[in-house]
Parts: sequence; C-alpha cells; structure tokens
Amino acid sequence: MTLAELAPQLTEIARQCYARGWAPGTSSNFSATVSRDPLRLAITASGIDKATLTPAEIVEIDGLGRVMTGSGRPSAESRLHLAIARARGAGAVLHTHSIWSTIISEVAEGGVAIEGYEMLKGLDGVATHEHREWLPVFENTQDWAGAAPEVEGFLTEHPDTHGFLIRRHGLYTWGRDLAEARRHLEVFEFLFEVIGRKRG
Amino acid sequence: MTLAELAPQLTEIARQCYARGWAPGTSSNFSATVSRDPLRLAITASGIDKATLTPAEIVEIDGLGRVMTGSGRPSAESRLHLAIARARGAGAVLHTHSIWSTIISEVAEGGVAIEGYEMLKGLDGVATHEHREWLPVFENTQDWAGAAPEVEGFLTEHPDTHGFLIRRHGLYTWGRDLAEARRHLEVFEFLFEVIGRKRG
Amino acid sequence: MTLAELAPQLTEIARQCYARGWAPGTSSNFSATVSRDPLRLAITASGIDKATLTPAEIVEIDGLGRVMTGSGRPSAESRLHLAIARARGAGAVLHTHSIWSTIISEVAEGGVAIEGYEMLKGLDGVATHEHREWLPVFENTQDWAGAAPEVEGFLTEHPDTHGFLIRRHGLYTWGRDLAEARRHLEVFEFLFEVIGRKRG
Amino acid sequence: MTLAELAPQLTEIARQCYARGWAPGTSSNFSATVSRDPLRLAITASGIDKATLTPAEIVEIDGLGRVMTGSGRPSAESRLHLAIARARGAGAVLHTHSIWSTIISEVAEGGVAIEGYEMLKGLDGVATHEHREWLPVFENTQDWAGAAPEVEGFLTEHPDTHGFLIRRHGLYTWGRDLAEARRHLEVFEFLFEVIGRKRG
Repeated sequence: MTLAELAPQLTEIARQCYARGWAPGTSSNFSATVSRDPLRLAITASGIDKATLTPAEIVEIDGLGRVMTGSGRPSAESRLHLAIARARGAGAVLHTHSIWSTIISEVAEGGVAIEGYEMLKGLDGVATHEHREWLPVFENTQDWAGAAPEVEGFLTEHPDTHGFLIRRHGLYTWGRDLAEARRHLEVFEFLFEVIGRKRG
Repeated sequence: MTLAELAPQLTEIARQCYARGWAPGTSSNFSATVSRDPLRLAITASGIDKATLTPAEIVEIDGLGRVMTGSGRPSAESRLHLAIARARGAGAVLHTHSIWSTIISEVAEGGVAIEGYEMLKGLDGVATHEHREWLPVFENTQDWAGAAPEVEGFLTEHPDTHGFLIRRHGLYTWGRDLAEARRHLEVFEFLFEVIGRKRG
Repeated sequence: MTLAELAPQLTEIARQCYARGWAPGTSSNFSATVSRDPLRLAITASGIDKATLTPAEIVEIDGLGRVMTGSGRPSAESRLHLAIARARGAGAVLHTHSIWSTIISEVAEGGVAIEGYEMLKGLDGVATHEHREWLPVFENTQDWAGAAPEVEGFLTEHPDTHGFLIRRHGLYTWGRDLAEARRHLEVFEFLFEVIGRKRG
Repeated sequence: MTLAELAPQLTEIARQCYARGWAPGTSSNFSATVSRDPLRLAITASGIDKATLTPAEIVEIDGLGRVMTGSGRPSAESRLHLAIARARGAGAVLHTHSIWSTIISEVAEGGVAIEGYEMLKGLDGVATHEHREWLPVFENTQDWAGAAPEVEGFLTEHPDTHGFLIRRHGLYTWGRDLAEARRHLEVFEFLFEVIGRKRG
C-alpha cells in the first residue's frame, strides 16, 4: 500500500489509541510498511498531538530514517520501527504509552512473563491458553540510533516475540498488517491491566 | 426470530461490549436462539474483531455446531452456547472477556459466591438483595467438544444458575432473550468490579 | 413544570448516568417534583432499562405512590423519593448504583464523613472546603413502605444533609431542581471515588 | 487573540475536561491571555457547570480581576490565573479537579517529585526522561486574594515549574498557548495516575 492509502489508516488508529488513553499528549508513534525492498515506512511525524493528527502529518521514511515524502521530522524512535520491520517483517508497528504498560515496565525486572490466559490466543500463532508469552523490558534511552541494533538483534534471535516494553516509557507491538498489530495491542493492554490490577 | 432479524441485534450487542472493554481483540462470542426444535443458533463466527463486526459475520448453526447458513467457521466454544441453550432454554448467550471477570475467575477457587447486594435483583427471578448467587468456575480447555457435556450437566442440575466463569478466560451468562442476557451481563460485570476493587 | 416537560429531562439524566456506569441493568430511579400541594412526582417506572429509557416510561405519582398519569408500575423505592420531597422540599431526587457508592456503603459503619475537599463546595450552601459532610448509611430492605418514615424523620431532623447511602445498594441525593441534583451527584461520586481509591 | 476568538476554544477544552472526569460539577476554571499590556484574561465565570458551558459564560478580566467584558462573576481563583500569567508569561492556564490529582495532592507532603518517565518529555523544555519534575503542593484557602502573591513569588523564583497542586483541591498547569497547556495537563494527569496506581 502507498503512503496515501496508509496515512488515513494510521490516523484512525492513532485517534482510537488517544481516545482510550494510550497516546496522551504528543506521545506514541505508529507506522506501516510501504515497501520492503527498498524498505519504506509510513510513520507519524515527531511531536504531533494524536488527538488532532491528520494524514498530512504522516511521513514516508527510508531504511535510514530519512524523510522521503511529506514534511515533518520523524521521531528518534523511528529507528525502532525500522528495526522491527527488518527483524520481524512487520507490516505495522504500534508504539503506545498507556498507564498499565508504564506501570508493568517499571515493576518488571528484565521482562514480563504472561501465562495461562485465554486472551493470549489473540496473538499470532498462539493456539492455546497454556502459552507462555515473554516480553523483554529494554532500558529507556535518548539515543535510539545507538540502541536500536540491540533491539533488532534480540528480535531476530527471538522470532516468537510479539512485543516489548521500554522502561517507564511504553509498549511496542506489531503485526503483519495494521489489523493484526491493533489486535496485539488490545491483547497486551488487556493483559497488562489484569496483571497490574491483580498486583495492586 | 430469524437469522436475518437476530444478526443486527447481536452485532449491536457485540459493538457495545467492545466499547466497554469487555470484548477486546477477537475475543468473545454472542448467540441467540433461532429455533428450538430443531435447535438452531445465530452466533458470531470465530476470529472476528468485535470492533468491526457486521451482521454478515453471524452464522446459523445446528445442534451439532455445523454451519447451516452463512460463511465463516463457528468458534469451538459454540459447544458451550448449545449446551446453555439446551440445559436452560436460553434465548440468548453472551460470552465476554472483561478485566474484572478474568481477575475474579483467577482468584476464586471452585466458584464465586455473591450475596447481599441490591444489584442481584437484576437477575431473573431474584426478588431480594438477601439472595446468594453462586457462579461456578470451570477450568479452561481447548477441547470444548469434550468438556461441554460436563457444563451442560451442571446447568441442568443447577437450574438457578445465571452465569459461570472459565478460569483466566471470562464469563458466560444468558437470558430468555437478548435484553435479559444483556441485563445479566451488566449485573455480573458490576458485581465483579465491586468485589474485585474491594479485594484490591 | 409538568410531567410532559420533566419526562425528557429525567430521560436525559438517566441516559447520562447509564453512560457513566452509575445505573447498570434496570437499577436506579430518578424523579422530579411536578407540584407540592398536592404532592406529585414524575418518576421512572420500575424495572426499566436506563440505557433505552424513553419519556413514555416516566409516570406521575401522588403522595401515596399511586400512579396518576402514565402506564407502568412505580418502584417500591418511590416511597423514598416522596420522603425526600416532603422532608427537604427537593425539586429532584436521583438514586444511582455506582461501583464506588456501593463499596463505600459496604465498608462504612453508620455513615461516611467527608471533610477538607474543595469539591464539597459543589454542595448547596457549602462555602468552604473545611466543611464536614456526613452521609448516613441506612440498612437495605425490601419494605420501603415500612422504612421510608425513618428516613423522612432523619432528613427532617438533619436539614443540612445532601445525600445518604443504602447498604450495598447505592446513593440518594437531591436538589432544588434537576441541575442542582445532578451537581450533587457528581460531587458525591467524585468524593466516593477519591476516598475509595485512597483506601484501596 | 480576542475574547470572541478564545471563548469557543476555552469552551471546547472545558467540555473535553468534563468528559474525562477532570471537571465535575461546577469545579475547575480555564483561562487564556487576551493581552499582556495591559494584562487581560478570558476566563470561565464562577459556578458554571462545565458540562453545559457556552462561550457566553467566558468573561474578560483585567489584572485586578475586574470584569471588563461579559456578564458573570469571575472565580476567586482568577487571582491564581493572573499570578501565573504574570510570573510565567503563560498564554493559557488550566485548573482541573481530577481524582488522581486530588489523591496525589493529599498524600504528598510539600510537593511531588516525578522522575524517570518518558512522558515528562511532553513538558515544555524537557528533552530527556531523566528529568526530575517537582510540583509544589500549596495548602488550600478561601482567600486567594491574600494567598496568590505567595504563589506568584514561588513561580517567579522557580521558572522551570510546569504546574502545582492545591491540597485536596486540584491541579494548575499552563502553557504558552492552549494547545501546550492542554498537553501539559494530559502529561500530568497521566503521571499522577501512574504514581497513584503504583502506590495503590
């Protein structure tokens, strides 16, 4: 799909996430893959309020994070979107800042294990509630150009991962397309809230 | 009522449940009885996102769970819908995945007793807040064809039951029609949240 | 105001309360005073789903709770609405079933004291946050014809009360008109949630 | 911008805050700077329900809090809006009463330190999550004419402050314009909820 086709879809997803409190202020960013060879992503520009996002605020970047089409600066975290697109062949990447993902990212040590819930079957390839999902927690940084290769390496080595957290920051999840990425987002947000409230 | 009449009503209920966070991702399924002899249910097809469900994604199944009308695969859990329709003469069955029903299903042992709340009077046949409602918690399984008869047996032996939980999975409730089933759903969700927050 | 004028306003308030989760299932009832001499109330009929309430489901009752205009049975709790209208000269009475009022009604002993919050100034006649508001908790009953006089006596003796709770049941609050009653409702719900979460 | 231009914008912000539960009853007030020399603010009149606020209920006041344009009495807290406009050159000031800001204002001692969260980067001038934000908690009073100079002095001496709390009352935050003030509000509400839930 082209930037022109993906931009309204990303805008709609961003609006839904904002409405649910998962993208407050100018936080969060959302991308979808325009082409794989060469790699091109449609991605929300940096510093945009998700409550009022318009398709014109979605830019197209290349594999080095340079803007190919559209005006606006991509977020430093576009490096993570590119890493996920490369390592996992993702068609869409959603990065959100919810209350519960922030809390879980803070209290977890190296990662979060989630096991035994029916809701896990909403994750691609998971056929039973007996599945054990493990999300790593990466430390936050302001240098994603430097840190993204570590994340990309991890995802390449762990192809069964569906998401990860960044400490006191938020969630990254993805899917082969926007619908699957959105389903993964809902699954993880649900499970974080269950775990967070049980602990509370 | 026919499939054509029930499908839009089931779609509307599903949409409301999704909006309230009770049917995230592709979870949850909803049915209504088309005929009793032979038994026919209108039921949401498996793996459909409830945020975007359309009437065309409701199928009609027979008493063995085979699709009679419509395209789409019914969920393995249609066995439980059929069991409830048979054991309790239900006109509608709602199965949801909420945060609080998941938490309650996890912390309860064999079942949950709820007693002394005015809200209990929203359940069919309950005339006083002094009523004691008991919901069994069944263990989760991926083999509902095998496990549904046990549930059907329980419901036949306990005709005063208004709902049950599946461990780390969610709630089943029902009613003589969709309006009553929805009322029961609201009553149970309210009571689970009260109990869950009190415990928290 | 006449029944015809008040019914749409009560319907709108009920719809708002339902949307906020304060009137699940067929719970809650709402009234406004049509005339004082003789006493006449417009009140929601019993057993009506507040999600789909229409003005035709509001009836007019006299001071003994008998239906004067409209079809439908008034709730047994209309006795409490009449008691409040008489003891406090209320122009509107709102009775809701929220999560937090239910929890507070259960953990409080004879009543709830709320003190020191700026939000208290939203109550009629309260000019400083240093105010101490006291809400009695009455035990629940299914015989309100018998129990309403005790409530009426209490309210007559304590003219500074703005609301009361019924154990494991919900809140009653009122005002000189629907706007003031709604403001009192929002004030109490806010304060119950603050107190409930602090305790949690 | 003129009062006529700002009033609809303030009305819209108030409506959003009401919908999110941050401005219940007649609580909260919102202002934007019309001119700096002489100082003029557009501000919500006192005692108005934010659910039904209209642009006609926004008045223009001068630097002494006197109404220049419009009918309606400004809140006693307009003194704080003026103090913030003077000390920080704010173009907009938002004062809200949320559940979590009330709880945090009650449990904090002299102030609240928030550190290490990515969301802090939504505050003007904050470039890293390693930032430590400190919000003072001022004691509540009914004499803001007397107390506002202390607040103004504090803000002048601490130009890096983005907001403050009033004990058991609520939050004040601001920005160079309404969009920035709203972003700051969302950032603080998010962080209060994270901190409050973690503590819970």
